[in-house]
Amino acid sequence: MKVLVIGGDGYCGWATALHLANKGYEVGIVDNLIRRYWDSELGVDTLTPIASIQKRIAHWQDLTGKKIDLFIGDITKYDFLQDAFAKFEPSAVVHFGEQRSAPFSMIDREHAVLTQVNNVVGTLNILYAIKEHCPECHLVKLGTMGEYGTPNIDIEEGYITIEHNGRKDTLPYPKQPGSFYHVSKCQDSLNIHFACRVWGLRATDLNQGVVYGVLTEETGMDELLINRLDYDGVFGTALNRFCIQAAIGHPLTVYGKGGQTRGFLDIRDTVRCIEIAIANPAEQGKLRVFNQFTEMFSVLDLAHMVQKAGQTMGIKVEIDHLDNPRVELEEHYFNAKNTNLLDLGLQPHFLSDALLDSLLNFAVKYRDRIDLTQILPKVSWRR
Amino acid sequence: MKVLVIGGDGYCGWATALHLANKGYEVGIVDNLIRRYWDSELGVDTLTPIASIQKRIAHWQDLTGKKIDLFIGDITKYDFLQDAFAKFEPSAVVHFGEQRSAPFSMIDREHAVLTQVNNVVGTLNILYAIKEHCPECHLVKLGTMGEYGTPNIDIEEGYITIEHNGRKDTLPYPKQPGSFYHVSKCQDSLNIHFACRVWGLRATDLNQGVVYGVLTEETGMDELLINRLDYDGVFGTALNRFCIQAAIGHPLTVYGKGGQTRGFLDIRDTVRCIEIAIANPAEQGKLRVFNQFTEMFSVLDLAHMVQKAGQTMGIKVEIDHLDNPRVELEEHYFNAKNTNLLDLGLQPHFLSDALLDSLLNFAVKYRDRIDLTQILPKVSWRR
Repeated sequence: MKVLVIGGDGYCGWATALHLANKGYEVGIVDNLIRRYWDSELGVDTLTPIASIQKRIAHWQDLTGKKIDLFIGDITKYDFLQDAFAKFEPSAVVHFGEQRSAPFSMIDREHAVLTQVNNVVGTLNILYAIKEHCPECHLVKLGTMGEYGTPNIDIEEGYITIEHNGRKDTLPYPKQPGSFYHVSKCQDSLNIHFACRVWGLRATDLNQGVVYGVLTEETGMDELLINRLDYDGVFGTALNRFCIQAAIGHPLTVYGKGGQTRGFLDIRDTVRCIEIAIANPAEQGKLRVFNQFTEMFSVLDLAHMVQKAGQTMGIKVEIDHLDNPRVELEEHYFNAKNTNLLDLGLQPHFLSDALLDSLLNFAVKYRDRIDLTQILPKVSWRR
Repeated sequence: MKVLVIGGDGYCGWATALHLANKGYEVGIVDNLIRRYWDSELGVDTLTPIASIQKRIAHWQDLTGKKIDLFIGDITKYDFLQDAFAKFEPSAVVHFGEQRSAPFSMIDREHAVLTQVNNVVGTLNILYAIKEHCPECHLVKLGTMGEYGTPNIDIEEGYITIEHNGRKDTLPYPKQPGSFYHVSKCQDSLNIHFACRVWGLRATDLNQGVVYGVLTEETGMDELLINRLDYDGVFGTALNRFCIQAAIGHPLTVYGKGGQTRGFLDIRDTVRCIEIAIANPAEQGKLRVFNQFTEMFSVLDLAHMVQKAGQTMGIKVEIDHLDNPRVELEEHYFNAKNTNLLDLGLQPHFLSDALLDSLLNFAVKYRDRIDLTQILPKVSWRR
C-alpha cells in the first residue's frame, strides 16, 4: 500500500513517514521545505541538529534497505502536485503540509494571509488531485483540537447530535478557533466535508492535541534520523518548551494563570494514530473525525510535572507566569472525547516521569544549541 | 455618517450605495469591476443595459446633487485598501465585494481557488484595515443563508443554544455549505468572529437569502441608474431567471424536483436591511448575525407563481425539470428564523403578483437582449 506523506520533512511528518515505511508501507514524501526557510527567517532553530531531507532519506535506506520517494515542491502549485500524484499513485494521502503555528499566523496581516492561503489552497488542491487521479484514495488530514475552542459543553468527535424545538439532527460540531491558524484548519474541514458529500471522497480529519516527545522507534535508530524539537516562542509547543527551559535553568513560561486545559499526546502515539487511520479507511463519501489526544492537562499541570521531574534529576525548576500573549480563557470547562482511536486499538503512551526524564535529558544533551533570546513569546494576539 | 460600500458596482451593492446616499449617508464605493470582466470571460451579460460606474455616479450627482466617492481597485491588495480607508475614514463598511456565485466557484479548481482566496483574503484585509485605521467602525458583511445548508432542525440566527450531557452553551450554528462559494462565506464568518473576540471589533453578518427584483426607489429614478439583472446559468438567481425565461417563452428551468426550499427577499428589502444594520450597530467585540430574508419558498413554488402571473398577462409558461446540476437535497425540512431585522423595524415587501408583473414586464422590455445560449446551467457540481 502506497502512502504519500505531505509535509514529510516536519516534526510529525518525518516521524510518520519513517514509521509507515518501517511497517511495510511504500512511502513517498512531498515537502517544499518551507519550514526550514521560516526558521531562517525568524532566526530560530530546532534544538536537535537535523540532517537535510535528502541525507535523512538516503541514510534511512542505508540502514533499512527501504526506499522513500521524494517530491520537493509546493502543493499550492497544482501542476507540481498533480505530477507527484501521477508518478506515485497513492492509495492514501497523509496531509501534514500546512503552516502549523498559531503565533506565526498572528505575527501580522501578511502571516495571517500566508497561513490561510497556504493551508486552504493546499488542501483544495489535494482534494482536486484525489478526485481527478485516485477518487478511491483515503485522505488523512491533520486538524487540531484547537478548532473547537473551549465550549462549556463536552467536545465530541467532529459531530454533535442536537435536539432543538422537538426535532433532532447530527451536525458538524460548532467551532471557535483561537488564532488565524486555527481558523485555517476549520476552513479546511469545511472544504473536505463538502468534497466528501459532493464527490464521494473519503477522508479522516484528525483533530490532534499538542504533541510532545522527540523519539520514536524509527527516529531513534540513528542520530542522522533525529527529529526536530522546537522550543522557541513561535514553533515550540508547551511541554517540549518547558523541558528545554528546565534543562538550562530558565523559568518555565506559563502564559497567564495556566488554567488553559488542552489535549496532549506522545509523538509515538501520533505515528500510531496515523497508521490506525490508514489501516481503517473512512467510508466512501464520509468525512470521519477523530480527536487525536490521549490525556488532558492544564498548562500549569504540565509545568508542575516538569518541575517535579527536574527535582528528581537534581535540577531546580522555577515557574514564571507571563502576561498571556494570546486571547484565551485561563479558567474554563474542557472535556473532550477521544474514544474513536482507542476503539480501533490505540494503546496510549501516557505522560510519565520516564518520558519527562528522557525529554529533559535530550534538552541537557543539546543545551549548547539553545538560543536564550528565542524562548520568550514575541507575538501578541492583541497587537 | 460615512459608509464605504465595497462591491458597490454590483447588483446589491449599487442599489445599496444609492439608497444610503439618498438617506443622507456620505457614501464611498470601492470596487475592482471584476464582475464586469467575469461577464466578458463567460460571454454573459446583464439583461438590463448598465452604465459604467463612472457614468452612473456622475449621473446620480447630476440628478440629486449628492456626491459618491469612487475607489477603483482590488481589496486583496492591502496597500490599495488601506489607502481608501485613510482617505475616506468610514464609520461603517458594507462588504459586498466578493465572488458571489455558487456555480462560478464550481466551474473547476481554478475558480474554486479564485473564489476562496479572493473572498477570504479580501475579508481578512478589511478586518486588518478596520483594526489599524478605525477600530470603532462597524463592519456589515454579506453572508448567505446557504452557509447553513438544510439541517433537520430549525435554523437560528448565527448561534444556537445547545444542551448536552447536562451542560449548556450558546455556540456558532453548525454550517453545511453547499458549494465552494458557500464554504468561502463560512470561512469569512470564522475570521470575523475571531477578530471580534480578539480585537474587540464590531460586525454584523447578514446571512442573506436569494434576492429578486430590479427596481429600488433610487435605481428606478433614471435609466442611466438602472441595476444589473442576471439570468444566465452562472450568475442568475432563481426567481429573476424564471421571469426572464417566461418573458421569452422559454420553459422555466427547475433543477430536479424543485422541492429545495430557500429564503427569499426583494432587493428593496436588501437595501433597507443594510440601512437598519448600520443605524443599529453591533456592540464592540461582538459578531451579530441576522438572517436576511422575508419569505421561504420552494423552487417549484416560485415556478408556479411565475406561471400564474404569466397567465394573467397572457403569457403561456411551461416548467421543465432538469437534471439537477447541483448536489443538494430536493426534499428536506427547512425552517429558518428571521426575526432580528423585523424587530429592528424592517417592513417586508412580500412577493406578490404585482412584483412578478413588474419583473415580467422588465423582461419583456429587454427581451431583445436575451442570449438563449446562456439560460441553461453549464456547471455541474459532480464534474
